[in-house]
Amino acid sequence: MGMKKNKAITSREVDFAKWYTDIVRNAHLASYSAVKGCMIIEPTGYAIWENIQAILDRKFKELGHQNVSMPLLIPESLLLKEKEHIEGFAPEVAWVTHGGSKELEERLCIRPTSETLFCEYYSKNVTSYRDLPKLYNQWCNVVRWEKETRPFLRTREFLWQEGHTIHETAAEAEAETKQMLEVYRSLFEDYLAIPVVCGQKTEKEKFAGAEYTLTLEALMYNGVSLQSATSHYFGQKFTIPFDVTFVNRENREEYAYQTSWGTTTRLIGGIIMVHSDDNGLVLPPRIAPTQVVVIPIGQETAVLEKASAIAEMLKESGIRVMVDRTEKSPGFKFAEHEMNGVPLRIEIGPRDLENNQMVISRRDNYTKQTVSLAVDIPATITDLLDQMHHDMYERALKRNIENTHICKTLTDVKEVMETKPGFIKAMWCGEEACELKMKEIRGTKSRCIPFEQEQVSDTCVCCGKEAKQLVIWGIQY
Amino acid sequence: MGMKKNKAITSREVDFAKWYTDIVRNAHLASYSAVKGCMIIEPTGYAIWENIQAILDRKFKELGHQNVSMPLLIPESLLLKEKEHIEGFAPEVAWVTHGGSKELEERLCIRPTSETLFCEYYSKNVTSYRDLPKLYNQWCNVVRWEKETRPFLRTREFLWQEGHTIHETAAEAEAETKQMLEVYRSLFEDYLAIPVVCGQKTEKEKFAGAEYTLTLEALMYNGVSLQSATSHYFGQKFTIPFDVTFVNRENREEYAYQTSWGTTTRLIGGIIMVHSDDNGLVLPPRIAPTQVVVIPIGQETAVLEKASAIAEMLKESGIRVMVDRTEKSPGFKFAEHEMNGVPLRIEIGPRDLENNQMVISRRDNYTKQTVSLAVDIPATITDLLDQMHHDMYERALKRNIENTHICKTLTDVKEVMETKPGFIKAMWCGEEACELKMKEIRGTKSRCIPFEQEQVSDTCVCCGKEAKQLVIWGIQY
Repeated sequence: MGMKKNKAITSREVDFAKWYTDIVRNAHLASYSAVKGCMIIEPTGYAIWENIQAILDRKFKELGHQNVSMPLLIPESLLLKEKEHIEGFAPEVAWVTHGGSKELEERLCIRPTSETLFCEYYSKNVTSYRDLPKLYNQWCNVVRWEKETRPFLRTREFLWQEGHTIHETAAEAEAETKQMLEVYRSLFEDYLAIPVVCGQKTEKEKFAGAEYTLTLEALMYNGVSLQSATSHYFGQKFTIPFDVTFVNRENREEYAYQTSWGTTTRLIGGIIMVHSDDNGLVLPPRIAPTQVVVIPIGQETAVLEKASAIAEMLKESGIRVMVDRTEKSPGFKFAEHEMNGVPLRIEIGPRDLENNQMVISRRDNYTKQTVSLAVDIPATITDLLDQMHHDMYERALKRNIENTHICKTLTDVKEVMETKPGFIKAMWCGEEACELKMKEIRGTKSRCIPFEQEQVSDTCVCCGKEAKQLVIWGIQY
Repeated sequence: MGMKKNKAITSREVDFAKWYTDIVRNAHLASYSAVKGCMIIEPTGYAIWENIQAILDRKFKELGHQNVSMPLLIPESLLLKEKEHIEGFAPEVAWVTHGGSKELEERLCIRPTSETLFCEYYSKNVTSYRDLPKLYNQWCNVVRWEKETRPFLRTREFLWQEGHTIHETAAEAEAETKQMLEVYRSLFEDYLAIPVVCGQKTEKEKFAGAEYTLTLEALMYNGVSLQSATSHYFGQKFTIPFDVTFVNRENREEYAYQTSWGTTTRLIGGIIMVHSDDNGLVLPPRIAPTQVVVIPIGQETAVLEKASAIAEMLKESGIRVMVDRTEKSPGFKFAEHEMNGVPLRIEIGPRDLENNQMVISRRDNYTKQTVSLAVDIPATITDLLDQMHHDMYERALKRNIENTHICKTLTDVKEVMETKPGFIKAMWCGEEACELKMKEIRGTKSRCIPFEQEQVSDTCVCCGKEAKQLVIWGIQY
């Protein structure tokens, strides 16, 4: 690993929270605005989000989903229609009470999520099984009036996509719920190089108003868990109060079956906390806005021309590349692109040119290699980017395994959470009382009931009664 | 022209407003929501917006702009900093007063536009001429609490892009203002097939807080004008109150020079009102979500296979194509795709197959032609789409010319506006009093002082005093 060289960044071993915000600010990902808890997403942060959007949007459309745009504002009466939903969201919505100088007759909340709007829409547009399924998605902003905020991880306004679908049968809706979790799993593992645990939320932790919630949980460098994407199965819990019925194949009226699923700009926080280091951002190559920076050493025309020719060649192969022609010193440039997380750096100077070679450095592990200019350069770079993705994933996975601890008693849990926090694998009886008891230990919460079950003990980690299932526990962001 | 066949749509000659909303609803462009004036953009409407976004976003980036995301909410104190700006926007902003159950210490408005947020950001991030220019854009939603609303044309929430830039010199900022108007002109004329008049708004009609506003004005089928995109030059009007200074090349502190520019989902309303007809939507081919629909006649395997093969061939050439394999009758399908504005329809039946031919119909002028399957099909289709774009533009331009009237007196203006409304070319003395007098004639407003000036008379159309310049006038949406 590279020596810490960047003085603008606090070491993550010294103060993880400070390290995190130092990276957010210095790599130009986000900035604070005049409204507490609302951030400005700056060019690099937004470009990462655009790359993630492109990956997901293509996948959503391949699976038959259509993008729409629902209103920002929800009348209070509409939000009140589903009881659990409003109970979950009421404490954290922002209310609009005036339009211009006039007080509104009914106050409107800024959407914290849009199930109610979609249900209202379905109720007017679905009549027969022939109209189903409806597979919608929207890319938008939502507002949740959080008390404690932190850029990307927890902000009062955030950007996300919310998928909303409605189906003829419970089986079809449940299959959609699972399928979309798998789309997210692929995004995290195959593009962001972040290994995730897939599972189901407990009753206590599920989405307000859902039958059940599926989730992806990721482990950060400091052992804290991040809920990274969720997919909800609603059954008929909203379609009944919203009167979303259709005439089924047996010619009888039936309430439709519903799902929703989402992921947010929060995952940019996850990318930082899984991959980055004391010299700045480390970006997974497949979503990095700039994948390769070419740095000519000196101002010799032949060198500058070669640098441009290499960049042009890479660009034609669809690689996102830039040439840094500024007059800053090479050392300054190296540090700057390291800070910004550019995956690969190509240096080429007069002596390299003489020897018909270039130097390629990897951002993630600081390895350098001298490569002949006679090779197939785009193929070499593509291979290196793939290798880097693979290595970053494996490194994160290894850390997850090292930081996942089996606990059989509350004493075990305390010891782990006080010395080496991470994921805890522990059996659970299924009672909420035991979840509440676990929370007393540094806020340890159930992350999920993982799909991959194992029997690590026979009894509940908390009450000692017969265990029903394995649960992954952790401290959360 | 085709005979009116679609009973779901009111004729535009009978009731233009009703015709407009019939198309919006029946072509699945937008729907009403539970909040007055806030619309739901449905899949076809949103797909058109996505295609427009892709064209503009690519162009913005080519010109060096970076996307960012500013907050949705603006503290009242920030909005108050520039006097003309707040006077212009105060009557139409929505106010957030509560977060959860707590009243906020300072109320927040939902952004009607984001100059104030960008200026606050610049003031913290610009120190030297070396930091300039900053060229930003964001794709987002804004809210303006309009009284009268109509889908796309005037809604309380709408989607748009807002570009915001800041420069070292007035000349550079003014060049940016002009350049971005030209980007919009190209969008309208080269992609949407809508001819526009380019010019400058009068003092009375400029953006609240701008030095001046450049605008594109388009003429709708019924002779009403639509302000289609604007580009504002602010000079130092915001940078002084927001204290956005930089150290210039002479090492002196100076206030920076600012622009902003935007276009909105309103232009989908413009597309409808310029091109569509009594059988439904007519979409400009370059932004149509589906450019070609292939309709197999009957269910013969050979026909279905040929239809798929044609579609595959077109898709490989980057043409947006679908095959309609549903079991509806051909006549029903024809009407449906006509309603949805699909530019080209290819029919192929058993007899066509025998004769190695297909039938291609154009949506805009209902012409049909029989084409051999031996031709280069993608090239033929590409040519037809180009020809259609060209013809739609020429048709709209011809109508603009026919509906542009030279007026020399108020009596002329009255006669035109009462019998054949459209653009009026008339000279103006430069006094606001004369603009107010014109407004008394059916709400006739100055649209712009066109870049292409001519002298249609020597005296002001209103007061008869010496004329300063030519103004284009019209009734507005």
